[in-house]
Amino acid sequence: YRADQLIEEHIARLRRQGQDEHADAVHRRFVEALHADDMPRALYEIIMDEQIRAPDSGAFDWTEVRQFNLMFETQLGALAEGNNTIYLRPETAQGIFVNFLNVLNTSRQQIPFGIAQIGKAFRNEIVARQFIFRMREFEQMEMQYFVRPGDQMEAYEAWREKRMQWHLDNGIRPSRLRWHRHDKLAHYADAAHDIQYEFPIGWQEIEGIHSRTDFDLRNHQAYSGKKMEYFDPQTRERYIPYVVETSVGLDRTILMLLCEAYREEEVEGDQRVVLKFHPQVAPIKAAVFPLVRKDGMPEIARAIEADLRTVFNVMYDEKGSIGKRYRRMDEAGTPFCITVDGDTLADGTVTVRDRDSLEQVRVSKDQLLPYLHDRMRAWTPAD
Amino acid sequence: YRADQLIEEHIARLRRQGQDEHADAVHRRFVEALHADDMPRALYEIIMDEQIRAPDSGAFDWTEVRQFNLMFETQLGALAEGNNTIYLRPETAQGIFVNFLNVLNTSRQQIPFGIAQIGKAFRNEIVARQFIFRMREFEQMEMQYFVRPGDQMEAYEAWREKRMQWHLDNGIRPSRLRWHRHDKLAHYADAAHDIQYEFPIGWQEIEGIHSRTDFDLRNHQAYSGKKMEYFDPQTRERYIPYVVETSVGLDRTILMLLCEAYREEEVEGDQRVVLKFHPQVAPIKAAVFPLVRKDGMPEIARAIEADLRTVFNVMYDEKGSIGKRYRRMDEAGTPFCITVDGDTLADGTVTVRDRDSLEQVRVSKDQLLPYLHDRMRAWTPAD
Repeated sequence: YRADQLIEEHIARLRRQGQDEHADAVHRRFVEALHADDMPRALYEIIMDEQIRAPDSGAFDWTEVRQFNLMFETQLGALAEGNNTIYLRPETAQGIFVNFLNVLNTSRQQIPFGIAQIGKAFRNEIVARQFIFRMREFEQMEMQYFVRPGDQMEAYEAWREKRMQWHLDNGIRPSRLRWHRHDKLAHYADAAHDIQYEFPIGWQEIEGIHSRTDFDLRNHQAYSGKKMEYFDPQTRERYIPYVVETSVGLDRTILMLLCEAYREEEVEGDQRVVLKFHPQVAPIKAAVFPLVRKDGMPEIARAIEADLRTVFNVMYDEKGSIGKRYRRMDEAGTPFCITVDGDTLADGTVTVRDRDSLEQVRVSKDQLLPYLHDRMRAWTPAD
Repeated sequence: YRADQLIEEHIARLRRQGQDEHADAVHRRFVEALHADDMPRALYEIIMDEQIRAPDSGAFDWTEVRQFNLMFETQLGALAEGNNTIYLRPETAQGIFVNFLNVLNTSRQQIPFGIAQIGKAFRNEIVARQFIFRMREFEQMEMQYFVRPGDQMEAYEAWREKRMQWHLDNGIRPSRLRWHRHDKLAHYADAAHDIQYEFPIGWQEIEGIHSRTDFDLRNHQAYSGKKMEYFDPQTRERYIPYVVETSVGLDRTILMLLCEAYREEEVEGDQRVVLKFHPQVAPIKAAVFPLVRKDGMPEIARAIEADLRTVFNVMYDEKGSIGKRYRRMDEAGTPFCITVDGDTLADGTVTVRDRDSLEQVRVSKDQLLPYLHDRMRAWTPAD
């Protein structure tokens, strides 16, 4: 376990139990401990005094708090000759700083501009748990936005707004998202906020937005001997840019989308499990069914499937009753089910059934694509 | 260096020098050595007898041939307590075999079906070199296609054809691609071919297609104690499926596309560097220029840019002469440059300039999208 996480969970538990005064006291002591010279000892004393137990076993048999290297270590080259020790990267950000000069010199960008990257990162977590929430190998999506020193707060606030909007645009309910300001700023940061989501396991970080000053570029410059300066052609100033960083976990974002979408409901007298994804993030946008496997209905349904498939991912299903096919698509989070029936043969219309409202609408099969596009754009999350 | 690669390069060199008889002899001996009980010794003797030198330095001071573990080793967990040794995966395939039962039980698939995956793999290569051709951390795209035992050769030939067609569809010239049959089949394989591309450094593997029998699933079953069998509802047979695998390196594919596209040409009395990408793989599909920065031309160009951007990646550029802007786009491999000029204001047409033929055509700006789509589809590689 990580001592800081144990104490944070303890504080959250106290608040849930309405013991706000006690929680505030522990929180004050926690912030002091994080700044203490002997931080491990100070954290250990909080755990002892508060009698914090192991979340899984309830045991109270802690060792002293120790500091660990969270980076995975391995050897480069096939011969174990020493001083070839390398580490798996614990974040993608430093790769972007290393590339800063290359991008600046090859891409005709002027400050302000950003570099974004998706990639694997590796942390040797002491306790990896909670499904894909905390893993030793995970996928990060990071952006470093380079600005003129002094402009960082404006950029910081603009990116906070944009990033929160991104999660809302993916269909997360506003009531499940909140800001968390860092109690202790890292030595290089002049501002730091997390976006938290209310998972079934409680409020947890999904994204961090940090104003990192020129700490990283200045250090890369110092240790590489390579100038990391930018020359501003308008003002004729020369400076090391300041950096605003946004860092979001892809796996956690997926877990959030699943938690947010998962519902158990009673419909038409039946229990159903449904994933109410925003249509934009639903892996299958529409399913096409022939009502029965005859009278040319499968052929028409296949033609609709082929037509829609040029634009988005579609599934064809002809097995089982229509009700059973609806349930399968509910479980996969498919927002629209299109049924070809007897009327289709007569007048060219199909039934479009809505995953969330269960409403069924007749639509001309030639108008399906604009109809579905309109419905997708108009979607908002239900409570 | 890898002994087998040194010998293969030696054979290729002999052939280039027209010494086919000698090359055949070394090749026969090489195949024997690969099957020898003391393979390292047998390979060493070939290197000695043929006086094969180090490609970089020309040195001839080899140690004995040794066998290395190409997997990166590291420790799981923060305490170095032993028996927590783990390895970075050297290929993505085994993850697919581990997932076979999950996919079978959750996705309503019947054999034959395939599972494809893209991901990082890691090999502690003794000599990583040739830009992104051989790297210690690389991206694999693999597919395992599961078939009924006995059907594997039919599937194998079908996948060979499909995979070769994929490379051709990406704009690779047929003359630069060839098949290479494996001299020595791995113990688990009953057929294996590589697709090779003629890089500037010679013919090299970009993709492997292998018929792996039931070797992997049978071994996973033996060591996990978990049945890997498939029950065929039609024939009521129960069997462990056979596997046809296609495995392509993403980084090598990118390097191939770059090598294939890169040309130095003389045009209009000028030397130009141009990347003749298939429009389908070009990172920027079209660029939009206003002829001059006045008379409302930038506004019209911006509107065209915004319209095209909803469909593919577009770049706007208003800096420098038209000729200079063309050159920039040639270097980036952009197939089409669209210029807004005086005539646009009068009759609504724009100039579309072709990267390869340099031909310029007037097109109504409302017809740009279908025009570009037609041109992209009709593209074929020049020699």
